[in-house]
Amino acid sequence: MSLTLPPTVSESSLAAALRELEQAVGAEHVLTDPEDMLEFRDPFWYHEWDDFEASAVVQPDSVEEIQAILRIANEHRVPIWVSGVGRNNGYGGSSPRVRGSIVVNLRRMNRVLEINEELGYAVVEPGVRWFDLYDTIQAGGHKLRLSCADLGWGSVVGNTLDHGITYLPYGQDQMMQCGMEVVLPDGELMRTGNWAVPDSKAAHVYKRGLGPTPDQLFMQSNYGIVTKMGVWLLPTPECYMPCWLRVWKNEDLPQVIDTLRVLMLDKDIEGVPQVLNTLCLASVLTPEGRSKWYDGDDPMPEDVIDRVAKEMDIGRWIMRFAIYGHEDVVDSKFKRVRAAFERIQGAEVWGKKYAPDEYDSIEHPAEKVEIGIPNLDINTMTGWYGGEEGGHVAFSPAAPMTGGSAVEICGLLRDRIEKKANLDYLAALLPINARCFIHITMVIFDTKNEEQVRGAYEAQKILVKEAGERGYGEYRAHLDFMDLAASQYSFNDHAYRRFCETIKDAVDPNGILMPGRHGIWPKSMREAPSGLNGS
Amino acid sequence: MSLTLPPTVSESSLAAALRELEQAVGAEHVLTDPEDMLEFRDPFWYHEWDDFEASAVVQPDSVEEIQAILRIANEHRVPIWVSGVGRNNGYGGSSPRVRGSIVVNLRRMNRVLEINEELGYAVVEPGVRWFDLYDTIQAGGHKLRLSCADLGWGSVVGNTLDHGITYLPYGQDQMMQCGMEVVLPDGELMRTGNWAVPDSKAAHVYKRGLGPTPDQLFMQSNYGIVTKMGVWLLPTPECYMPCWLRVWKNEDLPQVIDTLRVLMLDKDIEGVPQVLNTLCLASVLTPEGRSKWYDGDDPMPEDVIDRVAKEMDIGRWIMRFAIYGHEDVVDSKFKRVRAAFERIQGAEVWGKKYAPDEYDSIEHPAEKVEIGIPNLDINTMTGWYGGEEGGHVAFSPAAPMTGGSAVEICGLLRDRIEKKANLDYLAALLPINARCFIHITMVIFDTKNEEQVRGAYEAQKILVKEAGERGYGEYRAHLDFMDLAASQYSFNDHAYRRFCETIKDAVDPNGILMPGRHGIWPKSMREAPSGLNGS
Repeated sequence: MSLTLPPTVSESSLAAALRELEQAVGAEHVLTDPEDMLEFRDPFWYHEWDDFEASAVVQPDSVEEIQAILRIANEHRVPIWVSGVGRNNGYGGSSPRVRGSIVVNLRRMNRVLEINEELGYAVVEPGVRWFDLYDTIQAGGHKLRLSCADLGWGSVVGNTLDHGITYLPYGQDQMMQCGMEVVLPDGELMRTGNWAVPDSKAAHVYKRGLGPTPDQLFMQSNYGIVTKMGVWLLPTPECYMPCWLRVWKNEDLPQVIDTLRVLMLDKDIEGVPQVLNTLCLASVLTPEGRSKWYDGDDPMPEDVIDRVAKEMDIGRWIMRFAIYGHEDVVDSKFKRVRAAFERIQGAEVWGKKYAPDEYDSIEHPAEKVEIGIPNLDINTMTGWYGGEEGGHVAFSPAAPMTGGSAVEICGLLRDRIEKKANLDYLAALLPINARCFIHITMVIFDTKNEEQVRGAYEAQKILVKEAGERGYGEYRAHLDFMDLAASQYSFNDHAYRRFCETIKDAVDPNGILMPGRHGIWPKSMREAPSGLNGS
Repeated sequence: MSLTLPPTVSESSLAAALRELEQAVGAEHVLTDPEDMLEFRDPFWYHEWDDFEASAVVQPDSVEEIQAILRIANEHRVPIWVSGVGRNNGYGGSSPRVRGSIVVNLRRMNRVLEINEELGYAVVEPGVRWFDLYDTIQAGGHKLRLSCADLGWGSVVGNTLDHGITYLPYGQDQMMQCGMEVVLPDGELMRTGNWAVPDSKAAHVYKRGLGPTPDQLFMQSNYGIVTKMGVWLLPTPECYMPCWLRVWKNEDLPQVIDTLRVLMLDKDIEGVPQVLNTLCLASVLTPEGRSKWYDGDDPMPEDVIDRVAKEMDIGRWIMRFAIYGHEDVVDSKFKRVRAAFERIQGAEVWGKKYAPDEYDSIEHPAEKVEIGIPNLDINTMTGWYGGEEGGHVAFSPAAPMTGGSAVEICGLLRDRIEKKANLDYLAALLPINARCFIHITMVIFDTKNEEQVRGAYEAQKILVKEAGERGYGEYRAHLDFMDLAASQYSFNDHAYRRFCETIKDAVDPNGILMPGRHGIWPKSMREAPSGLNGS
């Protein structure tokens, strides 16, 4: 069996490293068989392309095993790439940036270490999925709700470290993390914030310590491996009202955004809404895929989109959002929300109130997510093109919450995706706070259609550059254009990148931990003549 | 005139550096006369002690001048210490940790660079005081409110960088900062988050960029000089209701805290309340000082405290807090708040609603602060001992928001302050979020009474250690016990400190920027045989 070698690592070094890894974590937890490794490969990368192929997958079960892995990687100078559960789909899945890296997958470290009902938090390991944490909360009868992501199979820690989005009030500004345990590249074990005080009383209640707060330094970076994390949970509200807003004209978007900004600034709407265009929601609700609506190879024309909007009764833009709290306050907020949106001609707003004992029997997938019940229903959308073989890649810039900005960024994205990639434009605008939305562009394609896959990724690169030139930076990027996305953050000749590199070289002198993650390369690879870093 | 020399810097090097600094910023902006420098000295350090004496004060007016200062400091290996306005009173004022450092005071950089009313933010330089930003917002007629600190003379940036506390809803978790410009120790100019994208659209609306977010790395540290910062402002709420809770028994505190936690988790109370004991509020409201109430040299006895509580009508514990929002929501919240607290025997809750056109004519200092009107009234408290010559030092651990924790930490603090320092126990519990309060212990003393000053600082050191042993870490520390406070964060043989040192050495190899700030020392000083770092 021939291994996929990382650049600058010899076959014998890699083989030696793998032998030592087998001793460290047990042979059954070191996967090198391509069949076994398949589920750790980016499922949406064309199957014959090997750019992001791993050499092996190692699955440790403890901090000590992670420390052993780092010792071995440092000794043999083998790059490793870390994933939680391994579901970073749309951004590369569990695949490494550098071909031949060993993937360290933390799925086995799946313990919920603590749930504190009084103070509203949990402490979890990186293999804990949204499903697991939800189940543990339910099993304990805790009156707490989890702000979860759209897909329940992902890692709570992994999603947090990738700046992932969740939807309850603590999803705003991705604020739910509190306290971290990290293994540094040299194997040192560190705790952050108040957790650095032995037997700390405030480890998961105050987000800082004394001195600089490094927690966000371990997100979207390659400075350490997070092994435990505190997560704030919302005390179950007295009333939960999932709501919807529907408008019928594409041109209504700017007014929706301007109205939403005011409502969120006033906290009439909390949490993270989703503003979806027709095709985005249609993709979730059409298991048959787009062929149910249109057979052409070209992007779906306006009149067909209008027909989809009408026949599915989902409008040209539809927003899911929720109101939480005491019932009279929910009523008051809903009244203002409806009055504000109904100033938009033809707009409709509706919602339904639930009491706590009804939350866990809610059936609509979106309305489940907004009260923290993980599910997988949104996965249907990848079947828009290619059915079972469908995939997606996301282009996701951050933009200010103004109608003008929405018009600019949506116009740019739609034009390029339709004209350059020849694909449908599926848009989800996610207000991460009252002032800013992340524009998740779901580019769906048939993963078995090489030309379509290539077109989708090429279109992303055009978009990263064009959006960057207009002042829009990505919030998260796929492996294939991580460097390009990072290079848009170029103020003062890339001063931010150089700062990140300075830290990288200091904490990981051998450059073994996740080289290239979000554009941060260790010294050895920045200087590599092979142009390894793709810039 | 003899200069206060930093350790390891020769008189000729310092003199050369000062000459070059005069050329860089203008001779009139380099202060070496003790009289001129007096206001940059810690006002609450005994006047004959010279532990934290600066050699000079330099006041640049631009990023370029700061870059020149760093070049000169690096060239001559002269340590510099940075202050915004220079009002970090209670924690060392503008004084440096290392005797003989040159203080770089940024008071002249006092421009409000932008106010965006639609998106609710301002961009300010580090010399902008709360007063200045408030005035600029008012002058522009903007419908925005500033979450400000108790003392309006301080720097918005400086307070933020010291993890300082403000009181409006954006004060929770010190969340109001968004986007930073930083000069690194080598003179490089960097912008963080989306501000690193040239002509960024989302610089001050999304708190992250792509890759690790370094903003909190520049707080309570010595890795850079922040030269511009975005600050979120609250759209003026329709209704503001400053409120008070008063209880009459010392033993009511745990129930107050447990009730408050639930109300804050439910967002019936937002912002950062203040829970004050009798003597803390009495000190603010008694310009004559404690001698009005008691002449003894010992801590004020229980029966006298009870008398103060009754005669001033302020209870044994009193809490200021506020409710913001639409009027019907404010009414609903107040009803629940009152009902919840009135379950405590003898507790009283009251408040008054104001409309936006009334906010700026509110007269009560506390009620001003809670709607963002800066003032200096709370300064009265330092006159509790010593009148005009009064000073204070704060011991400020973070604790979980439970009644049990409040009993433990308050009991410990009161006992040691009364028995070890022979001083009155003045307590302010500040819930920085629903899950955690910072216990600000205002230790007031007569700055002209050497023995009393020494007793106050010595008591702090005992407290830092004893609280640390019980798992309580400080949120911010005075120069005199910064190292001791930092050393409580000792998990895994000080792994966090070593991580901070690794970054320090990488970004500031000459160790010239704020050596010793919050326990972070550069390599040269960690190895100094002189025991410079006090450990």
